[in-house]
Amino acid sequence: MINVSTTHVVIDGLQINNWSREVLLEQHAGGVTGVSATCAVWEDTIETIRNITAWYELAAVNSDLVTLAGSADDLRTAGQEGRVGVLLNFQNTSPFGDDLGMVEVFHRLGVRVAQLTYNIQNLVGGACYDKTDNGLTPFGRNVIGEMNRVGMLVDVSHVGNKTALDAVGASTRPIAITHANPLWFYDNPRNKPDDVIEAVTTSGGVIGCCLYPRVIGDRTTREQFCTMMARLAEQVGVEHVAIGSDTTRGWTDDYLVFLRNGRYRRSVPDDPAPSWPSWPSWFQGPADYPNLIEGLIEVGFGDEELAAVLGGNWLHLFDEVLTPAAGP
Amino acid sequence: MINVSTTHVVIDGLQINNWSREVLLEQHAGGVTGVSATCAVWEDTIETIRNITAWYELAAVNSDLVTLAGSADDLRTAGQEGRVGVLLNFQNTSPFGDDLGMVEVFHRLGVRVAQLTYNIQNLVGGACYDKTDNGLTPFGRNVIGEMNRVGMLVDVSHVGNKTALDAVGASTRPIAITHANPLWFYDNPRNKPDDVIEAVTTSGGVIGCCLYPRVIGDRTTREQFCTMMARLAEQVGVEHVAIGSDTTRGWTDDYLVFLRNGRYRRSVPDDPAPSWPSWPSWFQGPADYPNLIEGLIEVGFGDEELAAVLGGNWLHLFDEVLTPAAGP
Repeated sequence: MINVSTTHVVIDGLQINNWSREVLLEQHAGGVTGVSATCAVWEDTIETIRNITAWYELAAVNSDLVTLAGSADDLRTAGQEGRVGVLLNFQNTSPFGDDLGMVEVFHRLGVRVAQLTYNIQNLVGGACYDKTDNGLTPFGRNVIGEMNRVGMLVDVSHVGNKTALDAVGASTRPIAITHANPLWFYDNPRNKPDDVIEAVTTSGGVIGCCLYPRVIGDRTTREQFCTMMARLAEQVGVEHVAIGSDTTRGWTDDYLVFLRNGRYRRSVPDDPAPSWPSWPSWFQGPADYPNLIEGLIEVGFGDEELAAVLGGNWLHLFDEVLTPAAGP
Repeated sequence: MINVSTTHVVIDGLQINNWSREVLLEQHAGGVTGVSATCAVWEDTIETIRNITAWYELAAVNSDLVTLAGSADDLRTAGQEGRVGVLLNFQNTSPFGDDLGMVEVFHRLGVRVAQLTYNIQNLVGGACYDKTDNGLTPFGRNVIGEMNRVGMLVDVSHVGNKTALDAVGASTRPIAITHANPLWFYDNPRNKPDDVIEAVTTSGGVIGCCLYPRVIGDRTTREQFCTMMARLAEQVGVEHVAIGSDTTRGWTDDYLVFLRNGRYRRSVPDDPAPSWPSWPSWFQGPADYPNLIEGLIEVGFGDEELAAVLGGNWLHLFDEVLTPAAGP
């Protein structure tokens, strides 16, 4: 086992955990020095603000383990201090409601990444589970403009392909797929066709490879996953590839029901009581980063490439995107 | 006429205007370099956030005239740049709801002063128009603790006398009466008895003398008002006396109805259609600061005293109170 905590900056591009001291300790166990943590999925403005105040409280009570970060430099400092730096992210633009002004509000509250849609059409655009995707809406275009202005990363992970391509075109700054894989690796609506991956990466963005069981398949081995990352690095350039594990630590099945249905539908007849999928034996959660790193080394990642995909690429993107845009 | 804009820092401790470019120009005409502007009176959390986003917009569109300020230094810089620095204030703790976490939220959004109550009992304490005042509530005590921690000034202007005295005792940092006068000057529930004024000022706080017609009386002359300020300076020390004009520029009578009734009562039978009172001829609004300054000079304020009451005392208090408290 490699002791990554002393050798690498490890930034996880997305985790959606039920955060607690225990889950923070798992980050430390895995040598994770920074993570983008989801604080809204279906929540509206005020619900999201309460989720964020819970984060302020968690960070205050566990200040030996964690600190909220607003920039790449904050993440670097956290790592040097031996604390996990946490960037807050949204997996939906529902917290903005229909109000463009809320982008700056949430930026001021510490949110640095927002996925344009969760799984279904919203006020901003179409999503990966929509039958058809009508693209970015006029409001969505304004939201991206405002995110560009204040310094908030646009994330198209769960976003529909047309809306994702529109978003690349609309954004004046690089965007990200924080947690998804190439469609050529595993066929799932959550994974991305080449045109989306290439549009995002050729405009300076990053794709975070995702370990959520539903987007890698049931029997995927560590070698298969790491080989996928190596091939993706060849396809788009290693500087555009990273990791967004999508871990779901600490939740009961109730939360999965909320993720599936939000408040937009009742339980689905053919899946009335979903349960969390089993994670691969070689990556049960953030504590298994050393195991994943071992796999990356085995498939040929050298020191510099490893540093890039484990954290350097996220830091570079955050350096570029999370500062307020220069004035008019 | 004295050209105050080049000779003094003028900080107004409270204005409750319907802000616009026109009202900003009135500040410039009067040489006002900084002002604490009310952005909530009865509003709840989300309504207040929308008021604040309107401020972000107003400040962005009129960046030649105004800038939002978070500290005394921001106000100093604004003055040097020839812009009005605006601190946001609440005249109520209604935006916090029942949620202690909202204090940090609103601090992050730019709010730097919060009056504990508007005119009636709320979750935090008793108010000046309550028949009896039962004092600061346990929640109110926590709110003050949180305001002390994040760096938000406690204002007891409209607060009941018992709650105001409790607040002085509960706060670890100086507090303010941003806009009221001594009861000995004019008898009105909004004005303050000596024990409250002295508790606030002996613990390092400031009282902003108020020009709202209802708290100075109908026929008060400039000389009478300025003499009151001079006597108050003798009573509590000139370093504890300032100005909070309470101007209400740009509003129609509808807003006065909202101020009177909020949503807690219907229109009052004996005052179904209140209208704004007439302001004194010698102080119609912020543009008349030079006139007020002339009056202060006439009753004997020297250069240093003038600098203190016009802005220096607010800046000193803001220096002390608006920075986050040192960690545990």
